[in-house]
Amino acid sequence: MFQRVIRNFASKKKTTQLKEMLTNKSLEFIMEAHNGLSAVIVEEAGFKGIWGSGLSISAQLGVRDSNEASWTQVLEVLEFMSDRTKIPILLDGDTGYGNFNNARRLVAKLEQRGIAGVCLEDKLFPKTNSLLEGAKQTLADIPEFAKKITACKDTAKDPDFCVVARVEAFIAGWGLEEALKRAEAYKDAGADAILMHSKKSDSSEIEAFMKAWNNKLPVVIVPTKYYKTPTDEFRKWGVSMVIWANHNIRSSVKAMQETTKLIHDNESLVPVNDRCVSVQEIFRLQNQPELKTAEDKYLKF
Amino acid sequence: MFQRVIRNFASKKKTTQLKEMLTNKSLEFIMEAHNGLSAVIVEEAGFKGIWGSGLSISAQLGVRDSNEASWTQVLEVLEFMSDRTKIPILLDGDTGYGNFNNARRLVAKLEQRGIAGVCLEDKLFPKTNSLLEGAKQTLADIPEFAKKITACKDTAKDPDFCVVARVEAFIAGWGLEEALKRAEAYKDAGADAILMHSKKSDSSEIEAFMKAWNNKLPVVIVPTKYYKTPTDEFRKWGVSMVIWANHNIRSSVKAMQETTKLIHDNESLVPVNDRCVSVQEIFRLQNQPELKTAEDKYLKF
Amino acid sequence: MFQRVIRNFASKKKTTQLKEMLTNKSLEFIMEAHNGLSAVIVEEAGFKGIWGSGLSISAQLGVRDSNEASWTQVLEVLEFMSDRTKIPILLDGDTGYGNFNNARRLVAKLEQRGIAGVCLEDKLFPKTNSLLEGAKQTLADIPEFAKKITACKDTAKDPDFCVVARVEAFIAGWGLEEALKRAEAYKDAGADAILMHSKKSDSSEIEAFMKAWNNKLPVVIVPTKYYKTPTDEFRKWGVSMVIWANHNIRSSVKAMQETTKLIHDNESLVPVNDRCVSVQEIFRLQNQPELKTAEDKYLKF
Amino acid sequence: MFQRVIRNFASKKKTTQLKEMLTNKSLEFIMEAHNGLSAVIVEEAGFKGIWGSGLSISAQLGVRDSNEASWTQVLEVLEFMSDRTKIPILLDGDTGYGNFNNARRLVAKLEQRGIAGVCLEDKLFPKTNSLLEGAKQTLADIPEFAKKITACKDTAKDPDFCVVARVEAFIAGWGLEEALKRAEAYKDAGADAILMHSKKSDSSEIEAFMKAWNNKLPVVIVPTKYYKTPTDEFRKWGVSMVIWANHNIRSSVKAMQETTKLIHDNESLVPVNDRCVSVQEIFRLQNQPELKTAEDKYLKF
Ligand SMILES: [Mg+2]
Ligand SMILES: [Mg+2]
Ligand SMILES: [Mg+2]
Ligand SMILES: [Mg+2]
Repeated sequence: MFQRVIRNFASKKKTTQLKEMLTNKSLEFIMEAHNGLSAVIVEEAGFKGIWGSGLSISAQLGVRDSNEASWTQVLEVLEFMSDRTKIPILLDGDTGYGNFNNARRLVAKLEQRGIAGVCLEDKLFPKTNSLLEGAKQTLADIPEFAKKITACKDTAKDPDFCVVARVEAFIAGWGLEEALKRAEAYKDAGADAILMHSKKSDSSEIEAFMKAWNNKLPVVIVPTKYYKTPTDEFRKWGVSMVIWANHNIRSSVKAMQETTKLIHDNESLVPVNDRCVSVQEIFRLQNQPELKTAEDKYLKF
Repeated sequence: MFQRVIRNFASKKKTTQLKEMLTNKSLEFIMEAHNGLSAVIVEEAGFKGIWGSGLSISAQLGVRDSNEASWTQVLEVLEFMSDRTKIPILLDGDTGYGNFNNARRLVAKLEQRGIAGVCLEDKLFPKTNSLLEGAKQTLADIPEFAKKITACKDTAKDPDFCVVARVEAFIAGWGLEEALKRAEAYKDAGADAILMHSKKSDSSEIEAFMKAWNNKLPVVIVPTKYYKTPTDEFRKWGVSMVIWANHNIRSSVKAMQETTKLIHDNESLVPVNDRCVSVQEIFRLQNQPELKTAEDKYLKF
Repeated sequence: MFQRVIRNFASKKKTTQLKEMLTNKSLEFIMEAHNGLSAVIVEEAGFKGIWGSGLSISAQLGVRDSNEASWTQVLEVLEFMSDRTKIPILLDGDTGYGNFNNARRLVAKLEQRGIAGVCLEDKLFPKTNSLLEGAKQTLADIPEFAKKITACKDTAKDPDFCVVARVEAFIAGWGLEEALKRAEAYKDAGADAILMHSKKSDSSEIEAFMKAWNNKLPVVIVPTKYYKTPTDEFRKWGVSMVIWANHNIRSSVKAMQETTKLIHDNESLVPVNDRCVSVQEIFRLQNQPELKTAEDKYLKF
Repeated sequence: MFQRVIRNFASKKKTTQLKEMLTNKSLEFIMEAHNGLSAVIVEEAGFKGIWGSGLSISAQLGVRDSNEASWTQVLEVLEFMSDRTKIPILLDGDTGYGNFNNARRLVAKLEQRGIAGVCLEDKLFPKTNSLLEGAKQTLADIPEFAKKITACKDTAKDPDFCVVARVEAFIAGWGLEEALKRAEAYKDAGADAILMHSKKSDSSEIEAFMKAWNNKLPVVIVPTKYYKTPTDEFRKWGVSMVIWANHNIRSSVKAMQETTKLIHDNESLVPVNDRCVSVQEIFRLQNQPELKTAEDKYLKF
C-alpha cells in the first residue's frame, strides 16, 4: 500500500525535493496532472515533479477555471494525486481562494496531504483563467498580496514547503516595470520563487524580465503560448523551472473525443482496440499487484 | 448555466430516457465516462446514455476497483458528471456499498444528483473487479440480494429510476442454470433489467443465456472481453443495451502516457502539439461561453 | 427511511412552505439548527422552519464565521439537516461565497439538497460576523449585489425557492437612508424578502426601518441583540419573520461545558445522569425504529 | 491559527500521548466529542484525550450508528476535531468500514489528520450499535479480525499510532471464555490495547475478565451501562482507560430540546438567556482572538 511505499522510500521529503529543484542550478521541468491516474503517469514518465493545474483540475471535474469547484473539492483531487506518487506536487492555488486567512488554511491542509508547495497569483477571488481572451484581469494590491505570501510562509510547519508568487502583470496588460516591482515585493515577502506569466506567443516578455531580474530569486515559467521558444533559451536566461501546464488534459480530450466517436459511429469496439491500453494496464496503474500481495498476507487463514 | 439548460430542456426526465432505452425494441448503447469532462465528451459524440464505470472512476482517482474510494467520493464524481449532461447516467454501483440499507441510501442520493439508475451486482462488499484474474468472486445469497433490489426500488421516489441487477454467476465460475435462477429471482424482486456479465473472450455464455431467458426482462451486456462478436448478433438475440465500459479511460491513458513521454524526452511541447486539442477547446468543454454571457448580464453595472 | 417519509408526506413543497411563511399575514418564527440532530429537535418542537445559521454551523465545525469552512462543507451539513426534516430550511448563505457565479452555483446545489431558500448579505467575501466588535464591515456595491440577487432568482428552477436579501447598512454604521436605499434596490432585483439586521441592544433601528419601509416586501429580523423587545412589537410593525438565530448552539455549549467538567472533576457519570437524555432517546432521534422495520422487511429470509 | 499553536506546542506527539495513557500505571479517562466544538470543550475541561464516538458522530449528523455516513464523512468530522485540539483523539472506528484493506486505508488517512489511534470492533460491516436492544450482533471470525489488526499496525507509519481491539463477545451473548480467546488473539496480532465491552448494568463481566486477563495488555472499558460502579473499582482491577462515551451529545440534546421548546412556546428569547453562553463565548471557542491578531498582522497596510 501507498503508506508502506512512502515509509520505505529512502529519499528526501517531497517539500525538500521541490525546494531543491527551485534552487539548484539546472533547469527543471514539472508536468501537469489532474487526478490520481495522470499523476502516476507523470511520475512513471520520469518527471521529477507534478503541476496540479487549476485549469486541468477544473476541466476534468467539468467546471470552469473560475473557482467553481470549492477549495476542499480541489484539495480532495490533490490528496488522491499525492497518495499515489513520491515526487513533489506544486499546486496551482489560484489566489488562495480568498484572503490571507483562506490562503493560510489552504497551506495547512496541503501540508497534511503531502503537497510540496503552492503557487499563488496576484489576482482577485474568484479568479479568471489567464489565457482567456477578453477577460478582465484585475490585479491584487501589492501589499495585500505580499502579506498573503508572508502569512502562508509563516503558517507552513515545514520550512521547505514552497510558496511560489505568480505575477500576472504581463497578463493584465502591464509592462516590465510593474512586473519587476511585484516580483521584488513578493521576494521581500518571503516567496520561494517567482512565477512570471505571459500569454504572448513569443517569449519576449519573459526574456526581458529575466534580464532585468538578475536571478534575485528562482523564476518559474509556463510556456503554453510561447512553446516554440527552444528550451535552451530558457536555460540561457537562467530560468529555474518550466511548467508543462495542461498537455495531459488536452491530449486525453483529443483521444477520448476520437475514441468515443469511433465507437459511436461503428457500434463496435474493434476500431478502437489499438487506441486503448489493456484492462490489465489499468489494473497495474491502480497498483493492483500490491493489493494481491496484501490479500495473500491478510486475507488467508 | 447548467440549471437553465436543464430547465429549458424540453425533453424527458433522465430516468424516463433510461427506462425507455431499456424497454424499447432497439438495441441501445451507453458509453463509459469517469468525470465531468468525459461525460460531456460522451454526450457530444451522440450517445444517448452514460455508464458511470466503477473501474474507470476508481482508476481516474488513482485507487483500486475494490471500494477504496468511499461511496460519497464516488457520488461526488457522479454529481459533476450529471451537472454537465442531459442524457441519463447509469451508475455501476458495485454491491451498493454494503447491505440493503447502504444501497437504498445510495439510491436516495443518486436521485437527488440526477442520476437515472444504478446497477447492483450480486457480490460481497468490498467488491473485486470481475475481470481480475485469479480473484475470488464470492456471490451474494440470492434472497439477500433480491431484497436489496426490492429495497432500492421501494426507496426510489421516481418509478422510472432504474435498478439493474447484475448477475455475476458466469464470472464466479457457475453455469447457465445458476445464471438463470439468479436472473429470475432478481426479476421477481423488481429489477428493471438484468445485466448478465461474462469474461469469456467469446460470447457463448451470453448467447446461451439470451436463448434460455426468452426476454422476460430487458438484458444489458458488457462486451469488453467478447468485443469481436458483431453487434448485430446482440441485436439478433434480443439484447436491450450494450455498455462500452472502459474505453475512454483506456484511450486517455494511452494518450497521456505517450504525450508525457514525448514532452519529457524532448524537453519541448513542439512534438505534442498535434496530439492535443487547443486550450480554447478545453474552455469550450468547460462551458466558458455561458459564463461570458452571464458576466455580461450580472457583472456589468 | 427519510425518502419514504418525504414521498408520503402530503404537505406542500418545502420552498412553498417557506414562501408562504414570508408572504402571509402572521408573524412567523424559525429557529437555528447546525447539524442533522439539532434540525430534528427544531422540527419536533413545533417550529415551522429552520435557520441554517452560518455562525452556528461554523462554530460546531470548530472554525470561525469567516468562510473558513468551504461552501461544499457547509452544503454537506445542510444536506444532513434537510434529509431528516420536512420543514423548510433557510440558509444563512453569507455573501454567496464569492461573486454572482459562486452564488448561483450555490442556489443550484441548495435546490438539489431540498433547501428552501438562501439569505445573502451585502458584504464582501470572506465575510466577518456581524456581531463581532471592532470588525471592519465593508458593504458590497449596491448594483453588484442586486445583480447577484437577480442571478440567484434566475437560476432557481423552483420559483418558490426564496432568496432573502440581507441589508448590513446598520451593522456597518450607516443610517436609515442607506438601509432603505439598499432594501429598495434588492427588492427591485427580485428578492423575496429583506432581512434587516441590527446589532443595537434596542430595536430602534428596526422600528424606524419598518415604519419607513411600509411593507413593500416582507421583512425578516434577527433579534439576537434586541431580544428584550416584546415580540408583539414586531407584530405591530408588520415584521414577517423572526429568526432565533443561535440559541441551540449556545445552550448546547453551556450544557456540554458543565457536563464535561462534572465528569472530569468527579471521575464519574453519576452526577450527570439527570443532565442527559437516555441512549434510547438518541436512538429515537436517529430514527432507529424505521431501520428496525426495514430490517424486518429486507433482511429476513 | 491552529498550525502555529501546534508548531509551538512543546509537548509530545498526540500518538505518543495516547500510547502513554494506555501503558502507564494510572487509570486514565477520555471523553466523547462529536465535532470540532465539543472537542475544544473536552480539552478545555482538562481531559487528556478525546473519544471520537461513532454513536455521537452519527447522531449529530442525523443518521444512524449503522455506517450510514461514509467513512470519509466521518473522517472529515474528525479532521475538524483534530485541527482544534492538542490532546489525542481515539476514533471509534467500528469495523474499519469493510475488510483489512478498508481498515488500513482508514489508518493511513487518520494519521494524516493527526488522529492518535483507532478502535476496531470484531463485528461485521455494516455495524449495529452494541447497546441496541434486540439487534443481531454477529461477530467477525477471529483470524480474519486478527489479521485486520495486524494490517493496521503494519500500515501505521508512526509506531505510537494506537490500534485498540474491541471485543464484542459479551455484547453478542458469549461468555468469558470467548472474550478471553478473542482478547488473546488480538493481542498476538499486535493490538496496543483491548477494549472489553459489556452492556450489563453491573460490571460483573468486566470484573471477571480483568481477573482472568491478568494485564497481558492494557484494557479499556466503556461504563455507559454499569456507570454506578465506583471508579476506584476499575482502578483496583487494573483497568487502563475509561471512556465516557456519549455524554456530551446526550446533555446537548437535553439542553437543545428544552431551549427550543421554551423559545417556541414563549415566542421569546428572554426565558432562555440564562441557559445559553454568550455570543462572545462562541467567538472565543471559535478561536476568534487568533484571527484578530492575524488580521492586524496580515491585513493592515
Ligand atoms: Mg491555473
Ligand atoms: Mg465495475
Ligand atoms: Mg451568519
Ligand atoms: Mg460506537
